[in-house]
Amino acid sequence: MSGPSRQLLDRLSDKWVNLTLNALADGPRRYTDLAKSVTGVSQKMLTQTLRTLERDGLVSRRVTAAVPVRVDYDLTPLGWTLMPLMYAVKEWAEVHIGEVEAARAAYDAAL
Amino acid sequence: MSGPSRQLLDRLSDKWVNLTLNALADGPRRYTDLAKSVTGVSQKMLTQTLRTLERDGLVSRRVTAAVPVRVDYDLTPLGWTLMPLMYAVKEWAEVHIGEVEAARAAYDAAL
Repeated sequence: MSGPSRQLLDRLSDKWVNLTLNALADGPRRYTDLAKSVTGVSQKMLTQTLRTLERDGLVSRRVTAAVPVRVDYDLTPLGWTLMPLMYAVKEWAEVHIGEVEAARAAYDAAL
Repeated sequence: MSGPSRQLLDRLSDKWVNLTLNALADGPRRYTDLAKSVTGVSQKMLTQTLRTLERDGLVSRRVTAAVPVRVDYDLTPLGWTLMPLMYAVKEWAEVHIGEVEAARAAYDAAL
């Protein structure tokens, strides 16, 4: 597995990246909305996650002059191409987790 | 993202899990073959990775009485269902890594 694929998988398996991308899959969000819908995320972590996603070109950031200033985040076209992968992983896990847990129980019982 | 999906993504993004699954996608392998084809893996790490994959029901382990004893590893049917996901991630990364790197360069230049 090449460097880029590994890097991507690391990114995808980051809990906060996952939750943030999934929240943005429902449409553009203001920072304050994201902070609410990404349960348990700290302000520092959300800011860092959004910055990472923006830097990777997966999320766009739009600042609107207002008082207070308004910042909206959205998935970019590139970000959207990632979503089917996210759903596929989620679906595999939900379909097969029972088999994985049964295998673990059998393995542990045979120890 | 539920616990199982996160767990799975953690597993998938483990370098040695990745390389081991990909090596087994070419067919059943003896431990000694795997140790050669999973470049850079230590004996301890390969043993631990194979044990994790076996416990998750993704890899099977068959011991044949011989001198020395022969141990073959293979993907289970469940393990095979995971491979399309692995290829999809690999493909996304290879197709889009250029766009991600361009986005990073532009982001860093604008700092």
